[in-house]
Amino acid sequence: MNAHILAIGTELTLGQAVDTNSAWLAQQLAGIGIHTTRHVTVGDDLADITAEIRESAEAAELVLITGGLGPTPDDLTRDALAAAMGVELAFHAESFEQIAAYFRSRNRRMHERNRVQAMIPLGATPIENTRGTAPGLRARLGRANIFVMPGVPAEMKVMFERDLLPYLRERGGAVGVIVQRTLRSFGMAESEIGEKIADLMQRGRNPAVGTSAADLVITIRINADGPTAEAAKALAERDAAAVRERLGSYIFGEDDDRLETAVARLLIERRRTVSTAESCTGGLIAKRLTDIPGSSASFVQGFVTYANEAKTRLIGVPERLIAAHGAVSREVAGTMAEGCRRVSGTDYALAVTGIAGPTGGTPEKPVGLVYVALATPERTIVRELRVGENLSRWEIRDRAAKGAVNMLRLELVGQAR
Amino acid sequence: MNAHILAIGTELTLGQAVDTNSAWLAQQLAGIGIHTTRHVTVGDDLADITAEIRESAEAAELVLITGGLGPTPDDLTRDALAAAMGVELAFHAESFEQIAAYFRSRNRRMHERNRVQAMIPLGATPIENTRGTAPGLRARLGRANIFVMPGVPAEMKVMFERDLLPYLRERGGAVGVIVQRTLRSFGMAESEIGEKIADLMQRGRNPAVGTSAADLVITIRINADGPTAEAAKALAERDAAAVRERLGSYIFGEDDDRLETAVARLLIERRRTVSTAESCTGGLIAKRLTDIPGSSASFVQGFVTYANEAKTRLIGVPERLIAAHGAVSREVAGTMAEGCRRVSGTDYALAVTGIAGPTGGTPEKPVGLVYVALATPERTIVRELRVGENLSRWEIRDRAAKGAVNMLRLELVGQAR
Repeated sequence: MNAHILAIGTELTLGQAVDTNSAWLAQQLAGIGIHTTRHVTVGDDLADITAEIRESAEAAELVLITGGLGPTPDDLTRDALAAAMGVELAFHAESFEQIAAYFRSRNRRMHERNRVQAMIPLGATPIENTRGTAPGLRARLGRANIFVMPGVPAEMKVMFERDLLPYLRERGGAVGVIVQRTLRSFGMAESEIGEKIADLMQRGRNPAVGTSAADLVITIRINADGPTAEAAKALAERDAAAVRERLGSYIFGEDDDRLETAVARLLIERRRTVSTAESCTGGLIAKRLTDIPGSSASFVQGFVTYANEAKTRLIGVPERLIAAHGAVSREVAGTMAEGCRRVSGTDYALAVTGIAGPTGGTPEKPVGLVYVALATPERTIVRELRVGENLSRWEIRDRAAKGAVNMLRLELVGQAR
Repeated sequence: MNAHILAIGTELTLGQAVDTNSAWLAQQLAGIGIHTTRHVTVGDDLADITAEIRESAEAAELVLITGGLGPTPDDLTRDALAAAMGVELAFHAESFEQIAAYFRSRNRRMHERNRVQAMIPLGATPIENTRGTAPGLRARLGRANIFVMPGVPAEMKVMFERDLLPYLRERGGAVGVIVQRTLRSFGMAESEIGEKIADLMQRGRNPAVGTSAADLVITIRINADGPTAEAAKALAERDAAAVRERLGSYIFGEDDDRLETAVARLLIERRRTVSTAESCTGGLIAKRLTDIPGSSASFVQGFVTYANEAKTRLIGVPERLIAAHGAVSREVAGTMAEGCRRVSGTDYALAVTGIAGPTGGTPEKPVGLVYVALATPERTIVRELRVGENLSRWEIRDRAAKGAVNMLRLELVGQAR
């Protein structure tokens, strides 16, 4: 069974709001073996919505629609569905009573204009809305099942889970079930990953394996299709194991994992402690290492040594070292990490110093030059990153933080490079 | 001029990622008088992408496409555009050299696979990508102008602003011009703002004024429509002035301003210095105060005193104070701010201590209880926030940071409440 998802609203087409409903619905459908092939967003225009409903009903067996069910004149999905079906709207007394009851239960006065929400296309069935005033709609057009839900995410989700999901599960379950596995990697370019797993990424293969890149993290998605959840899961597991085997320690986690949460988890597991001394990242690494619950067991303290005097006063970087090499130097980075580790009494310390820009660069030390350092009980490692002068301050700080945190991750998994 | 926006990627149709590019692009287009009437998302399927390009090129004068330009076999937008245009792909030497230069500048090896990114439909023009490897594409199909951009938001945005916006601004300006003004507020509920500016928010009015809420910041958007940019701008200005007048110091900035960048700007303007001592926010406030260029003039140093001993050792919070009142207490917050200010020699110091959860709460001190403190040359102010036990760790940390930073902002504008 293939699905199309329509989102209705001029605030969406004009970009004043981001449609998150369609992605959520597509995920839910994938979980019961229904494949979404297309999302469409159109504004509050009767002709546009009507044309879109007709087109989708011809191309897909399932059409989910969100939005345009409110009580104001720009809410036109009811009218558009009626037009697409070639029928009239009719007053539905039971829906009207549910809307009235919704207002009563909140001690609020029902407005005359809410009456329009009880107008239902002839032949369609209303779906009760327990979280708001707009009833949903279920209808058939040609061979397509059409469901219309409110655009407010909280109302939509409850209606989907309570009314649509049981209905669809019955019908969708007959075909296959899609199981998704997501692996996350850092440090290898997307093109190189593409070469290493080219055979798994071939088109038409099951599982389907794809990659996407965001802020230096490459995500590898595995979608396995099987007759049962168990069969699909086994297929997905097999490919996930193959990807892990080939990418080794470049894989740092799964699903929504971030590099920092992976490291925080490793530190907690191994009962190791860490401290941080940050210049250009300004607290970003500390913030990320403390993002996960329970990080107080591993994260002891952090310094944001933004000014040079702070580097000297707080973590003992000698003034003459800064004078001789500059605050952004291999020497200062290493000494920051060692000083931070000593002052904090932690197993590890991470330090960063660099030029986040947009100003402050010189020909020898351009914007984007960053030194990241890791002090361990045995040694101190310093790496030079050149993250590109044309990147934004945000990107440079993000990459510097990721570079530093990844050093610690590789150390913890015994793969320091 | 009407536009359609296409987003390409199976990770989008399956709901594994949310498309934010299309909304961003639609906003940019609205700003230059181009109306987006439809967004479509299709997966990595050659026939689907080709059909969608053809359909959009017939219905709209401008078609913006994001995604599917990567180097792996599931990147099919180049092929689909060529198919829609009825032409072949040809190797483009200059684009290839730009891709090679991109790798060289990062000291990375270029992969054979990246060569495919320099394959351009005959008749299309490549657009240089300064942030990544995939060049964009410009083409004409029937009466439609088509632009293809990378799916990575950072790459797409730079390409749009640098290459497409100047081109489109010239052509879009002929019709009416929409000017957007965006004001940002903190500390007043959206419903209260709605009451204070109800007359401005009436439907059908020009400018159109709307509000939206995200993470406690209420954004007030003013969209003015005028025959010329000047006329639209004057209308927008008039409403912006009215909103500012009614909301006073609740307005902290414009456009994409964040509370922290507004404060960093005030500090730099007034040549004041600040330091931070953070417990539950773990460096988040320091990170945010150093987000803007030039913040080294105002931000001296920061402490992440996650462990109790760190509070004592680094900023002199007496052990017995922690023992008597607990680390999360009004007394400890105030002493943290004072100690941090003294140790750092700054004009101001901000301190935060709280319970970010999800564990660690008690009946008297539940998850979400946070004390924020500001030490100034004259006095120390401590505020208790109860940000809600049902919020996530992320939300609690975000609200704690915003609460602290807003104390400093109000102090700086002479409106400390």
